[in-house]
Amino acid sequence: MKNVFFLCVCITLLNCNTGPETQKETNAFAIAIHGGAGVKPAGTYTTEQENAYHAKMQEALQLGYSMLANGDSAVNVVEAVIKIMEDSPLFNAGRGSVLTGNGKIKMDAAIMNGQTLDAGAVNNVRRIKNPISAAKAIMLKSKYILISSGGAERFASDNGLEMVNPAYFYTQHQVDRWIKSKDSLGYENSFIDSLVSSGNLLSDNADALSVEKNYGTVGCVVKDKYGNLAAGTSTGGLFGKKYNRVGDSPLIGSGTYANNKTCAVSCTGNGEDFIKTVASKTVSDLMEYKNYALQQSVDTLFYQIFTPIAGEGGLVSIDKFGNIVFQYNTAGMFRGFADAEGNIRTFIYAK
Amino acid sequence: MKNVFFLCVCITLLNCNTGPETQKETNAFAIAIHGGAGVKPAGTYTTEQENAYHAKMQEALQLGYSMLANGDSAVNVVEAVIKIMEDSPLFNAGRGSVLTGNGKIKMDAAIMNGQTLDAGAVNNVRRIKNPISAAKAIMLKSKYILISSGGAERFASDNGLEMVNPAYFYTQHQVDRWIKSKDSLGYENSFIDSLVSSGNLLSDNADALSVEKNYGTVGCVVKDKYGNLAAGTSTGGLFGKKYNRVGDSPLIGSGTYANNKTCAVSCTGNGEDFIKTVASKTVSDLMEYKNYALQQSVDTLFYQIFTPIAGEGGLVSIDKFGNIVFQYNTAGMFRGFADAEGNIRTFIYAK
Repeated sequence: MKNVFFLCVCITLLNCNTGPETQKETNAFAIAIHGGAGVKPAGTYTTEQENAYHAKMQEALQLGYSMLANGDSAVNVVEAVIKIMEDSPLFNAGRGSVLTGNGKIKMDAAIMNGQTLDAGAVNNVRRIKNPISAAKAIMLKSKYILISSGGAERFASDNGLEMVNPAYFYTQHQVDRWIKSKDSLGYENSFIDSLVSSGNLLSDNADALSVEKNYGTVGCVVKDKYGNLAAGTSTGGLFGKKYNRVGDSPLIGSGTYANNKTCAVSCTGNGEDFIKTVASKTVSDLMEYKNYALQQSVDTLFYQIFTPIAGEGGLVSIDKFGNIVFQYNTAGMFRGFADAEGNIRTFIYAK
Repeated sequence: MKNVFFLCVCITLLNCNTGPETQKETNAFAIAIHGGAGVKPAGTYTTEQENAYHAKMQEALQLGYSMLANGDSAVNVVEAVIKIMEDSPLFNAGRGSVLTGNGKIKMDAAIMNGQTLDAGAVNNVRRIKNPISAAKAIMLKSKYILISSGGAERFASDNGLEMVNPAYFYTQHQVDRWIKSKDSLGYENSFIDSLVSSGNLLSDNADALSVEKNYGTVGCVVKDKYGNLAAGTSTGGLFGKKYNRVGDSPLIGSGTYANNKTCAVSCTGNGEDFIKTVASKTVSDLMEYKNYALQQSVDTLFYQIFTPIAGEGGLVSIDKFGNIVFQYNTAGMFRGFADAEGNIRTFIYAK
């Protein structure tokens, strides 16, 4: 049996007790993030590790708050906030992503604009410094939504995004993990051998404080002061994945969804469980078609749909009123929020 | 303005007039297929062309009927029926797929089991003879749902699926189309030059009768005699596509979805429109959460969601009672059905 431990944190920013039918839309903005639902039980991490995660999430939320206060759009905020987490080796996205079975780093990301339903996404990219920025560029500059691997890299390069050598993404922490597992994975990788011997692996303080976790995807949901919602998700996928596996993160309606009529959602966990349940669209449709509040929609997904299929993971969501709901059935989830009052809070464990 | 022409054909197989709340589930089976919503107005095709499409769809439906009558499962029938259409050069799936901008053939496919919500899918594959069979193998033999490009091909090869040289998929009709467009597409392709000069292009009678259309995806939805639903979709994607674009076909909840509680759906058209609207899950959720009949759910998707975002295409669907609904906003859709009475009907144009 999986250790199913439910936690549901409803942070009420606006009129929470009055039910959705009577809530008024306001211009108050809000933002919430996650850094993965693969948290281990309290006591596993050192205080220094916990502080490193809190500090990076605070930094991301502070930026998001400032941009929103200055009138920036939900889409721009989602991109900027996720870039901070992609650039940090603490999370399984961008630099610091987990390695595939054969020792490569292959990343997925998506962004969606709840005002227009426009979206952009990439899967299996290896050279784009910020996959979330590629997703945004696809949304804004192409007629496509999802593009893949080398083609996505050509698009990113054609559109002036920052490209890097794949070596950029490798960190000491993740390479050590792969080396410990490579015999059981059954692979060799001369590229990693050369990275290790060259001493070019990222090995800074944040990397040294990285915790080991399976679900380290990052995500962000935003309501801006114009009432528009957006969602974004970025991930290195599952450690040891094979066959160019694509998870839920870049799939609209599964790991990522936003719709001004309802909510914005970003998921983290075992991606296939979110694909089977088309999880983020389910939350939105429960709001739209059953008139549920966000909290009730998320609860319904988790208790009646996601857990019965043995789903494992979590999500962060925000509705059109600015209510934020976190939920997960793991031991915790790196997460936090900022509201229009300037309150910024971050959490790791179940509360 | 797009030429928006709605047609909704509801073929009532069971108790259609009594509304879903009072319908009884029976063991009657049924199957419906599409061969793409890119049909041009009546009068564009020759009688020989029309007959070729009717005959191939009849062949596929006859096989599906026989399998269902013999007690085969919905998933097996979806695979077998789609294989017939993949193997025919008449459709934009498998052999006869459209070419990408740079003259390659890159195919996507998905299958979903409505009983378990298990699913499998591939994108951007070039060497798997029947992408739908790879999707089924992923569903049955791996912990993944969606795998991509070369990785998907390795999985297929590792699991004993029939692999072919990419040349197998090229047909005279599709190569001629690409050559006519290649100057505007801005590409050269020496592989195609060698195929043309070698005389190895498929150029049989069916290929000669292929009609030119943009949306030629194939799909199949089934209710078997055990009451289980399944859906599958297979496609070569959009002609001239670039950057490893992935459409809606392999995305669960967008182009393909099945759930025994509601319905099974397969879409065809401009894939991004089905991704933005998470179209097939929307149909299912309207049934589950608003208690709509299949017809009303499909109508709601098309009239209130899909067309307002300028969506273009069609779908075929079957509910848990065996009702079949086709809908599209193009000039027609290659389509047909078979029921447990042995009735087999195929259609091309709006009726």
